[in-house]
Amino acid sequence: MVRHLEYPKKPQNTVNRYNSRATYDLGSIHSIINTTSVLHVSFGASPDEPFPAILPMIGVMGSFDYPSSGLDEPLDCYLHGYVSSRIMRRARESPQGLPVCVAATKVDGLVLSLTPNSHSYNYRSAVLQGYAKPVETDEEKLYAMRLITNKVVDGRWENTRVPPDNVEMTSTTILRVKVETGSGKIRAGEPHDEAKDLNRDEITEKVWTGVIPVYEALENPIPAPTNKVKQLPAYIEQFVSERNKSNREAALEAVKEP
Amino acid sequence: MVRHLEYPKKPQNTVNRYNSRATYDLGSIHSIINTTSVLHVSFGASPDEPFPAILPMIGVMGSFDYPSSGLDEPLDCYLHGYVSSRIMRRARESPQGLPVCVAATKVDGLVLSLTPNSHSYNYRSAVLQGYAKPVETDEEKLYAMRLITNKVVDGRWENTRVPPDNVEMTSTTILRVKVETGSGKIRAGEPHDEAKDLNRDEITEKVWTGVIPVYEALENPIPAPTNKVKQLPAYIEQFVSERNKSNREAALEAVKEP
Repeated sequence: MVRHLEYPKKPQNTVNRYNSRATYDLGSIHSIINTTSVLHVSFGASPDEPFPAILPMIGVMGSFDYPSSGLDEPLDCYLHGYVSSRIMRRARESPQGLPVCVAATKVDGLVLSLTPNSHSYNYRSAVLQGYAKPVETDEEKLYAMRLITNKVVDGRWENTRVPPDNVEMTSTTILRVKVETGSGKIRAGEPHDEAKDLNRDEITEKVWTGVIPVYEALENPIPAPTNKVKQLPAYIEQFVSERNKSNREAALEAVKEP
Repeated sequence: MVRHLEYPKKPQNTVNRYNSRATYDLGSIHSIINTTSVLHVSFGASPDEPFPAILPMIGVMGSFDYPSSGLDEPLDCYLHGYVSSRIMRRARESPQGLPVCVAATKVDGLVLSLTPNSHSYNYRSAVLQGYAKPVETDEEKLYAMRLITNKVVDGRWENTRVPPDNVEMTSTTILRVKVETGSGKIRAGEPHDEAKDLNRDEITEKVWTGVIPVYEALENPIPAPTNKVKQLPAYIEQFVSERNKSNREAALEAVKEP
C-alpha cells in the first residue's frame, strides 16, 4: 500500500479557486518548500501594528525527533534569516509559539494566450501555517543549521569549518515551525483559450500563443579573492550542473499538459 | 538637483539588522517589485483565524492619476492573482482598505564562505505595507490590466485580443494598494569571513569560498498546439534575449563588492 499523507483541509488552507490545481499531499508541498531558495514568512499584525510583516528567510523541512523521516512524512519547518528582534520577541512571548504563514513559489513558465485574461504562469506554490518558536537546544540547532546549509548547496556543511564555535551558536537563531496545516497549488500545461477567441481567424492569425519556460539558473562559481582552493571541488561542480539540469527539466516538463 | 524620494522610516519598516544593506529609496524599491515575477502578499490574522495568509500574486507599480510618473515617484501597487473571496470580502469591508504587506525577493547568488554562519545570499528584497482596495472603475481596471500584462512580457497587451469583453472585465479583480511605507534590502559582494578563520591555513586550504551567481533564465518559447502564428514575433524574441541578458548581468554584477 502506498502511503500518501495529506494535510487536513481547514477553512484557512482549503483552495477554492481553480481547486483542480490544489494539492494537500505532504510530499509535494514539502518538496516545493525544500527546492525554493527563499521562503516568505509572514507574521500577523498586532494591536500596535496594523500591517502584517513578511520576512524573506531560508527554510527547510526536517524532523529532529525522527531524522530519518521522508519528505512525505509529518515534518517541522526550520527557518533561518534576518530574524528581527520583533519576531523573536513575539515568538518567545507566545506560549504556543507565534502564528506564522510560510510561502514558497517557483515560477516554471510564462503562459501566453490569446487574451490578457487567460494569461497565466506555470508555477508550483506551497503554503504552511503553524506556530514558530526559537530552537533552544544546541543539538537541535546544529541539526537544523546543517539541514539549512546543505539546502543552499548539497554537502556544503561537511566541507566547511564546523562545528560552529560558541559565539556562532549563540548568535544564530533558528525558528522551528510546528506545522498546523498546509496546501499547494500547481499549474502546468499549455495556454487555455476559449472557443470564442480560438474560432476567430483574425485573432489566431495575429496573436502568438505558447509558453516561455522559466527556471532558476546557476552560473559558474566565482572564487572569492581570499579563496585558496585552486580547483573547484567536485561536490560544488556537481551541484551546479545537476541543479541547472533539474530546474530546466522541470520548466520544460511543466509545458506539457498534466 | 537630483530628486531622491524615500519612504518614511516607521517602526514597522525600519531595518535594524545589517542596516547598511537597507534602502528606503522609492526608485530602488519599486524597481525590485517591478522585476520580480511573483509577489507574496500577506494579510493579517482575524479574530476567527489565528494565522496570517500569504497569496502569490502578480503586481506592478503604477499611478492611474499620474500615468506619466517615473518609478522613483509615489506609486500604487496593483495586484492581480487568485484573489480569494476571503481577501476580497475583507478588502471591501474595511473602509480604509485591508492592511497588507507585499514582498518581492530576487536571489542574485549563493555566497559560500568558510563557515556555515557567514554563508549568505546575494539578493534584492523589497517590502511595501499599505491598504488594499478592489479597483472599481473600468478605466482604472484597464489601466492596471495593461500594466500587469506588459509586466509579464513587454508589449504583450498590444499584441493580444483587447480590450477585454464585459464578462472578462467583470470576472477580473485588481487590488490597488495605497502604499503607506516600504523598505528594501540589498546584499551584494564576496563572502565575508572573519580573521579567526582566514588566518588558519588548515581551513583556507580546505574550504572553497566564492559566489555562485543565480538568475531567472527564460528558455526558448514553445508554441501552443493551437498557435497559428508561424514566426515567433520579434517583441517576444527580443524580450527573452534582453531579459536573460539583464538578469544574468545583474547576478554577475552582484558578485562585485559594492
